[in-house]
Amino acid sequence: MAKLTPEILLAFISIDRESSSPKYLQLYAQIRDAVVNGKLKPGERMPSSRALALELGISRNSVVTAYDQLSIEGYLTGETGSGTFICTDLPDFLNTADEKRIKERIGLLSGNVSKRNIRYEFPSSEEEMRLDSEGDIAIPFQLTVNDLSNFPFQIWSRLGARAFRQLQHKNLGYSDAKGYEPLRIAIADYLRVNRSIICEKEQILIVNGARQALHLAAELLIKEGDDCWVEDPGYPGVRNAVKRFGGEICPVPVTEHGMDIQYGQEKYPNARLAFITPSHQFPLGKVMPLKQRLELLKWSREGSNWIIEDDYDSEFRLKGRPVPALMGLDPNANVVYIGTFSKIMFPALRIAYMVLPDKETAERFTFMKTMVDRQNPLMDQLIMSEFIVEGHFLRHIRRMRLIYKNNQEMLVSLLVKYLHEELTVDSSDSGMFLIGWLREGLKAKTIKERANREGIVLFAVSDFSIENKIPEGLVIGFTGFKPKDIEHAVQKLTFIIKDMTHV
Amino acid sequence: MAKLTPEILLAFISIDRESSSPKYLQLYAQIRDAVVNGKLKPGERMPSSRALALELGISRNSVVTAYDQLSIEGYLTGETGSGTFICTDLPDFLNTADEKRIKERIGLLSGNVSKRNIRYEFPSSEEEMRLDSEGDIAIPFQLTVNDLSNFPFQIWSRLGARAFRQLQHKNLGYSDAKGYEPLRIAIADYLRVNRSIICEKEQILIVNGARQALHLAAELLIKEGDDCWVEDPGYPGVRNAVKRFGGEICPVPVTEHGMDIQYGQEKYPNARLAFITPSHQFPLGKVMPLKQRLELLKWSREGSNWIIEDDYDSEFRLKGRPVPALMGLDPNANVVYIGTFSKIMFPALRIAYMVLPDKETAERFTFMKTMVDRQNPLMDQLIMSEFIVEGHFLRHIRRMRLIYKNNQEMLVSLLVKYLHEELTVDSSDSGMFLIGWLREGLKAKTIKERANREGIVLFAVSDFSIENKIPEGLVIGFTGFKPKDIEHAVQKLTFIIKDMTHV
Repeated sequence: MAKLTPEILLAFISIDRESSSPKYLQLYAQIRDAVVNGKLKPGERMPSSRALALELGISRNSVVTAYDQLSIEGYLTGETGSGTFICTDLPDFLNTADEKRIKERIGLLSGNVSKRNIRYEFPSSEEEMRLDSEGDIAIPFQLTVNDLSNFPFQIWSRLGARAFRQLQHKNLGYSDAKGYEPLRIAIADYLRVNRSIICEKEQILIVNGARQALHLAAELLIKEGDDCWVEDPGYPGVRNAVKRFGGEICPVPVTEHGMDIQYGQEKYPNARLAFITPSHQFPLGKVMPLKQRLELLKWSREGSNWIIEDDYDSEFRLKGRPVPALMGLDPNANVVYIGTFSKIMFPALRIAYMVLPDKETAERFTFMKTMVDRQNPLMDQLIMSEFIVEGHFLRHIRRMRLIYKNNQEMLVSLLVKYLHEELTVDSSDSGMFLIGWLREGLKAKTIKERANREGIVLFAVSDFSIENKIPEGLVIGFTGFKPKDIEHAVQKLTFIIKDMTHV
Repeated sequence: MAKLTPEILLAFISIDRESSSPKYLQLYAQIRDAVVNGKLKPGERMPSSRALALELGISRNSVVTAYDQLSIEGYLTGETGSGTFICTDLPDFLNTADEKRIKERIGLLSGNVSKRNIRYEFPSSEEEMRLDSEGDIAIPFQLTVNDLSNFPFQIWSRLGARAFRQLQHKNLGYSDAKGYEPLRIAIADYLRVNRSIICEKEQILIVNGARQALHLAAELLIKEGDDCWVEDPGYPGVRNAVKRFGGEICPVPVTEHGMDIQYGQEKYPNARLAFITPSHQFPLGKVMPLKQRLELLKWSREGSNWIIEDDYDSEFRLKGRPVPALMGLDPNANVVYIGTFSKIMFPALRIAYMVLPDKETAERFTFMKTMVDRQNPLMDQLIMSEFIVEGHFLRHIRRMRLIYKNNQEMLVSLLVKYLHEELTVDSSDSGMFLIGWLREGLKAKTIKERANREGIVLFAVSDFSIENKIPEGLVIGFTGFKPKDIEHAVQKLTFIIKDMTHV
């Protein structure tokens, strides 16, 4: 190897004595950049650490440290005594890590995504995404948004601060993948009293939102090509979960009794799963009556088929008692129950739960949860369980029921007052939205588009349908908005619809 | 329909006037149970609300409320004036929701899981799961466990309590699915200075642990049947992610320079992805030198192949500067970078992050994250970002480096002292564990089993290998344990090994 005079080559190195950056680091970075930029070539000999230290007026130790690091990283090579060299076997396409250049690249790449090789085909879930409202401001008439202005903010803040003040070491490590045990016990108690589900804490799995619950169920229960009943119209997120794991989407029409079980059995006799919202069908708002529930349970039991019961807003029974959950009716059927705190508490909490029909099934789901993200974060679960145990949860539910009931009544009376000729209100005894069926000639999608331009968020019933031809109707949320905003939005909507009918 | 005398049928109903349960609820529950138990048969006529109210000595309103609810749920049917009947079309296989019976069922079902129809075949990931230690007590010589006794507990507790005291409404709603913006900015700053990665906050995605990051990458980047290079030996969690999304596991041997790129290119020329731990190979602890890094980047760029860089413990560079991340070397390659706070902070936090090579790829990953669980919970992200911004994070890293360095030195000297004849220590300049290569004749798995029985957790290097025949060695963690526990465990291990060699 040629013995070059390295002093010449290293003239570009300068050590800034005023800098807060250690001298060895400055040296390291400059040599590294010189290799990357081609200022130093493979095979070139480096000055000895002693010589370089002398040359630069720094300690020999600084040079040794820099050389060691560069050796570890493969820039330098050499044994003690025989000299230090720039690695000879560096390929010759070195790229600079220069900040400016990289930023330019990122900019350049921006229009260029096709270059990157993303293999996965996305299911379309635009509607699902649009259901989320970001931040704290809800826009009428978004669906299932929280009324955060009536959230017991002070209590939550106090419980959270207390939990952190009383933080314990055992709160920091990995813990039961099923979720925080006191929270699972509190949920089991809540479900027994309020949803007629008798279950033990071992059957409950805490997950990172109802969406994760749907996807875990789809992954564990759907085999490639399995026929899956989904409600038509129904929640688009379910279709994403089914498609993601290779299931066949089998749209089953929703009648006034919820999903039409007989249609499902005749049209898709081989179906292995049904995704349903029996307590408050999304978006039509119907309750599935006992007869249909029992038929569905029979179908499940006799065919060993799975029912995924999504109980997304059952807390908001505005009149009468909550309709008991399907799962509570038959412990022998294969029902997987999904509940969430996103609607009654707040979305950023990301706590939902599943109830599995027996402990072994629960173990399988827990294993899957472990594999995909190990467990939910702990502190929020701890705070949530205190919120329930101290009685705030039930108080909050009762309070929100009254508020949402008032909102609903107000919305209904406004719609009747202003739009009784154009729209028939179909409100149910529960939930966070209602349907306004349009009189003949009015198109929901047209109204929706006009309304969007005016700053109102509206959905057409048909936004949620797959192949079911249903009459023209609007899905109108009434939670999360102040009464005056509801009034203002109804007036705007009235103007839009009246304007359309006069043309 | 026969007009039965309903008074007889309803003799079983009794209203408890002392009960705190509302009268309508008592009535509702008893009628419901009577239908479910067969005491009331389909088609039977119910007494009028007026008559029943009189009979039971309760208000008519209570009876009407109960009847309404039962009608909603499909137990009763009938129009005003024509009488109220038990629904005629109830199937005859009604099940009681009786608590005791259900508990028996659950018990009965316990041995019976094969009855339930779980379709998914689990990849084996026993080793992955065993790496987790639950709770706050780590057992020597577990791998990559946190030293929670040196966690800045008071600071975290204070920041958490403060964050909750200062809770804002905007912290409750859905927010940017990429993660809390100030945290992404703090991570980008950290990565630029410490990992030589120049990226913008738009390229960063906050996820629920490194495991979720691996699975998102596998799902988005692997197409059914794609060949995927994985390190052999390597982290078993990677294999789970590859299998889950239909990739082919292509074991590439690890040499002292990390993954053998040439072997990979010759044996699996069609591979589209490589999962690697270049800064500290798991479990052999080697740093991939520049030459191999550049070869790997060239392979990625030329074939449009993906590199998933798992930088799981790079904070723990015990000597010298951190080795820069692979991603920082070449912005044109398809590198997806994964970092985590589980090792330096604590596992229950569940915050990891991905850096995607450009904004469009980041959008795709964000969309996927949105689909699987919408976003990470917010408060922990907020607390984490304050922890970084206020300088605690870097201080904590520096402190833990010293502690782990001392642990490592102590472990090395103990192993040399007691076991120099049986075991050659191969410790690297970074990480949370080291390798003890065994002298000929000693079997790592036998030692591991004996040690487990004595309450010591040990792994054999071969636990992590796929087909690569590597010498017998133990993987020995040194973080998370008190010095005296390390000493005690080394003594136990010495006894076990000496005992085996004398037999």
